Amino acid sequence: MADITLSKMREHLYSAVVCDALDKLGFKNQSPRVPLRPLTTSGVLVGRCKTTLWAEMTHEDQRPYELELKAVDSCRADDVLIAAAAGSMRSGLWGELLSTAARRSGCVGAVIDGAVRDVVKMTAVGFPVFALGTSPYDSRDRNRVIDIDVPVEIDGVRFSPGDLIIADIDGIVVVPQAIEADAVEAAWEKVHAENTVRDAIAGGMTATDAFKKYGVL
Amino acid sequence: MADITLSKMREHLYSAVVCDALDKLGFKNQSPRVPLRPLTTSGVLVGRCKTTLWAEMTHEDQRPYELELKAVDSCRADDVLIAAAAGSMRSGLWGELLSTAARRSGCVGAVIDGAVRDVVKMTAVGFPVFALGTSPYDSRDRNRVIDIDVPVEIDGVRFSPGDLIIADIDGIVVVPQAIEADAVEAAWEKVHAENTVRDAIAGGMTATDAFKKYGVL
Amino acid sequence: MADITLSKMREHLYSAVVCDALDKLGFKNQSPRVPLRPLTTSGVLVGRCKTTLWAEMTHEDQRPYELELKAVDSCRADDVLIAAAAGSMRSGLWGELLSTAARRSGCVGAVIDGAVRDVVKMTAVGFPVFALGTSPYDSRDRNRVIDIDVPVEIDGVRFSPGDLIIADIDGIVVVPQAIEADAVEAAWEKVHAENTVRDAIAGGMTATDAFKKYGVL
Amino acid sequence: MADITLSKMREHLYSAVVCDALDKLGFKNQSPRVPLRPLTTSGVLVGRCKTTLWAEMTHEDQRPYELELKAVDSCRADDVLIAAAAGSMRSGLWGELLSTAARRSGCVGAVIDGAVRDVVKMTAVGFPVFALGTSPYDSRDRNRVIDIDVPVEIDGVRFSPGDLIIADIDGIVVVPQAIEADAVEAAWEKVHAENTVRDAIAGGMTATDAFKKYGVL
Amino acid sequence: MADITLSKMREHLYSAVVCDALDKLGFKNQSPRVPLRPLTTSGVLVGRCKTTLWAEMTHEDQRPYELELKAVDSCRADDVLIAAAAGSMRSGLWGELLSTAARRSGCVGAVIDGAVRDVVKMTAVGFPVFALGTSPYDSRDRNRVIDIDVPVEIDGVRFSPGDLIIADIDGIVVVPQAIEADAVEAAWEKVHAENTVRDAIAGGMTATDAFKKYGVL
Amino acid sequence: MADITLSKMREHLYSAVVCDALDKLGFKNQSPRVPLRPLTTSGVLVGRCKTTLWAEMTHEDQRPYELELKAVDSCRADDVLIAAAAGSMRSGLWGELLSTAARRSGCVGAVIDGAVRDVVKMTAVGFPVFALGTSPYDSRDRNRVIDIDVPVEIDGVRFSPGDLIIADIDGIVVVPQAIEADAVEAAWEKVHAENTVRDAIAGGMTATDAFKKYGVL
Repeated sequence: MADITLSKMREHLYSAVVCDALDKLGFKNQSPRVPLRPLTTSGVLVGRCKTTLWAEMTHEDQRPYELELKAVDSCRADDVLIAAAAGSMRSGLWGELLSTAARRSGCVGAVIDGAVRDVVKMTAVGFPVFALGTSPYDSRDRNRVIDIDVPVEIDGVRFSPGDLIIADIDGIVVVPQAIEADAVEAAWEKVHAENTVRDAIAGGMTATDAFKKYGVL
Repeated sequence: MADITLSKMREHLYSAVVCDALDKLGFKNQSPRVPLRPLTTSGVLVGRCKTTLWAEMTHEDQRPYELELKAVDSCRADDVLIAAAAGSMRSGLWGELLSTAARRSGCVGAVIDGAVRDVVKMTAVGFPVFALGTSPYDSRDRNRVIDIDVPVEIDGVRFSPGDLIIADIDGIVVVPQAIEADAVEAAWEKVHAENTVRDAIAGGMTATDAFKKYGVL
Repeated sequence: MADITLSKMREHLYSAVVCDALDKLGFKNQSPRVPLRPLTTSGVLVGRCKTTLWAEMTHEDQRPYELELKAVDSCRADDVLIAAAAGSMRSGLWGELLSTAARRSGCVGAVIDGAVRDVVKMTAVGFPVFALGTSPYDSRDRNRVIDIDVPVEIDGVRFSPGDLIIADIDGIVVVPQAIEADAVEAAWEKVHAENTVRDAIAGGMTATDAFKKYGVL
Repeated sequence: MADITLSKMREHLYSAVVCDALDKLGFKNQSPRVPLRPLTTSGVLVGRCKTTLWAEMTHEDQRPYELELKAVDSCRADDVLIAAAAGSMRSGLWGELLSTAARRSGCVGAVIDGAVRDVVKMTAVGFPVFALGTSPYDSRDRNRVIDIDVPVEIDGVRFSPGDLIIADIDGIVVVPQAIEADAVEAAWEKVHAENTVRDAIAGGMTATDAFKKYGVL
Repeated sequence: MADITLSKMREHLYSAVVCDALDKLGFKNQSPRVPLRPLTTSGVLVGRCKTTLWAEMTHEDQRPYELELKAVDSCRADDVLIAAAAGSMRSGLWGELLSTAARRSGCVGAVIDGAVRDVVKMTAVGFPVFALGTSPYDSRDRNRVIDIDVPVEIDGVRFSPGDLIIADIDGIVVVPQAIEADAVEAAWEKVHAENTVRDAIAGGMTATDAFKKYGVL
Repeated sequence: MADITLSKMREHLYSAVVCDALDKLGFKNQSPRVPLRPLTTSGVLVGRCKTTLWAEMTHEDQRPYELELKAVDSCRADDVLIAAAAGSMRSGLWGELLSTAARRSGCVGAVIDGAVRDVVKMTAVGFPVFALGTSPYDSRDRNRVIDIDVPVEIDGVRFSPGDLIIADIDGIVVVPQAIEADAVEAAWEKVHAENTVRDAIAGGMTATDAFKKYGVL
């Protein structure tokens, strides 16, 4: 099953089925329980974690945007920028110009545990951004990146650099690299099993009988 | 007025006007003040309460989905499944397969005081779901139904089996059966009264004068 | 620059760029950090504050709607009705009939720090309403206006009668009258500067270099 | 049982046993579920509701403290001042000087759904104050009383002028006047029943058997 | 070190030092981040988990208190009753009579993720209760136990039957049985190391130097 | 009035009267509206701000405690350590050993916008600590200081190095240095005025009359 590429995942997988696969492998806490909503696109975002760790501040930043720009400029193909900001709504941590620059580096989307701005423009260019909400404030002197490319957490769920991430309207799931192959394969099978159950129910079988027969819901 | 069928209500009534009718009858607490949003459809959902009571759990469920499936399979025409889950966001309590199965039994929608999953697919099939938000997690071993067909509460508002429910983007209203006929009739009249006021204001009357003349806003 | 009319602002400005201009002038707290979402329209709302101050109540109002109707009927061209209600979700403070009446007076939108109702109808007539959420309850005997045309606050941000307000999906910004001319001019310039940076990044410059060169993000 | 005076209640009753009595009479929502803590005294506060309704404000009050002082000065013996302020923490709604003045009028305590100040001094004089917390801010131009001697609500529980109130460290209970005699009598009996169960359990009976035998817990 | 009895732990250990020991062993999430406060006693509570799982309800309970009483009556020496109630404040889940009955069975304290009542009486008898707060409501028909002696979670931290628990004013820590011996030994050593650092700082060493020298804080 | 030393302030002033003085000078937002409670002492804490800015983290800290220890070791007489941690409850940011070390440097107390640990021991040594709550977790690899001796904010209120701070059970007030002399003098006078009003009310004057006569409450 080594041939399930990111492209194939984008076409066939979604957050719920990946959660089910992770459950089966005993990994039951891989999705943050915070409302990170898709603000700019619909559809499934699949990629690999490019992590940034943020702090709040209220004094003058001596080196504004420094690490944030470094993270953006060092993105590689299929990266998803992760902003671990502890849910800060102090300012828009992400916006249009960063989206444009990140995309140029190969970045395919952003997951911001905090606020973003420029929603209209990011929607116009179709850059996928998941966030808690919006703020028109510039992040300068309000929030800053204090570390990049380190393991971070959102709501107690760990996102390590390079981890596979699947995000859609149902939520965000991260797959640790050690179990990625198994998880993707299990998800792939669950997609098939669900189709079988769906057909059975559509064909008149009760939900109770369908679960009894197929063991899947 | 016994001839105001559910079909007619779906065409003419909406949550706000039913609240106004209930106010008039002295029933002032019939709409939960929690953000149960329509996640899959627009429009008004009208039906009768099919209640389920949920609990959180974290150990292995000996009889997974049992009462939940029983509730789904025992729905009747015009039922709206009510999940009283105390706002639990631990998992997706409702999803695509349950929607498909419930609809087959005549169920016309679901109101979930908690999270749901499979929003894209439930939107595709047009099944109305009101919920607090989303979670990609399976409910198995996370949440379970502990009772069905009993009176339940959401945010202190009581939903009894068979009660009339009207839900739309403004909110969710439940009408106790003892006053259903009176409430529906009063709502029907309020719809008419609002049209009169709207025409008066559109015709140039001030809001102050319109309220003075018609006593309605 | 005295020729930047409200019309021109509506065409070219947006909340984020106005925040940046206010930052530059040292006014760093001009946008409430509460999720006042555009519920009925997209686009930018620009106008001048027409303020109302609200209180919760639970007894019978001796003069229902009195000051609320007075505020609506005394709106002038380009007014934006501001409801400072401390985030009350007890009832729908604003709705269709008030929108219709206010618009007749020249009011161009409403910003409600609380709940509203009649979202479908207000969307149909295209009246811009920003609010925390919805409630189907009538405000009568639940919330009332206790003062109009006084300075009010939303989340610690002051809105004085006549202040310029700019609201869109990113958030809401209020510009004190004493610095309005300077703020609008600075915002105007920032719009231009951002275009330059956008072009540079689109043309292949790194984000780091673009910020170094232009000093803007 | 008409001879159960407030004095006797102060000696023998407490909030939990009064809740149990109200449950028995079918009044199951007579205690607000907000943490109104006794900040200045221990012990049970028993009295009759003297109600005030509060609003937040941020502009200059033309008649500072007016209704608040009127309420304080019109208290009568055994009154408990109730401040329905929707949980406002904007300022200290109650403090030492008001306590001193109210006590002089016969007022025996205060229940503030918001913040208070002067906790050290009110503790020193032994005036019972239940509140959500503290704030060193003066209420002037921050909060004001907009009505007195009207029915008010705290967390959806109604407090009408003259209602009996029992407050202690477990919580606050209000007894509607129409059922006061029955409720007090039922509470009186429950006190006795609990003593019996306590003795049985202390004497070696299991909790299961004690509940089976006495039907009380 | 097999001779560190519960009695010795009660004398020498406390929650913070046990957390440090667990950190050292790589168990970094063994203390719920919810304010479970000691409401009736000061001091350290040490014992073994006796678990109960709770659900909210609003209809008439057919078998009131059943599993709750069974749990209380089946406690053994050194048990600490754990009520996993998802933070429910609907009623007092624990109170004086249950404390008296549980103590008779050997139970040494209770940890309630929800509200309790009878604080004054439980304080008088010196029964240790940690809880989120108080409620004067009886739990009957409001909350019930749905399972006992199963693994439960409070704020994502797992409490399995028989696990060692240490609770004091700083917080609550649970030690999985598989690592109990190692954790207790490491805590024991940390107590000693902290004494050394304390003496060094008291003797004039800077905090920086003390940490450099001893590697402990 | 230059002779009002910190010692005299400790004897005569308190947070509420300083807030009133600041109100009079037009500084109306000098007290954070978050429940920073005195956890270890009663009484008034008066001193000068020694600021630290904190961030959350979840990876291995390369230089554990570094800036935190530097801050502690560089305290001077009458300093109050301020931890601006955005309300983080991830770990105990402050504890016994830091208290001991800081006190040795002259530090007279700590204000922590987050959690602390070792409450029993800090109480035993009488070191004043104001905090949001407690956590038994070590801060290492959970929270770290990212800057010291910079202006910081707690709940939007600015604390600059060297600012005067007054903290007691009512709350925490910070006095900007530019207006310190005026504020202290105004507070001093308000203490006197309150005594006059207190005497008048105790002597039988109504609260209404007392406010009319003295203009103070």
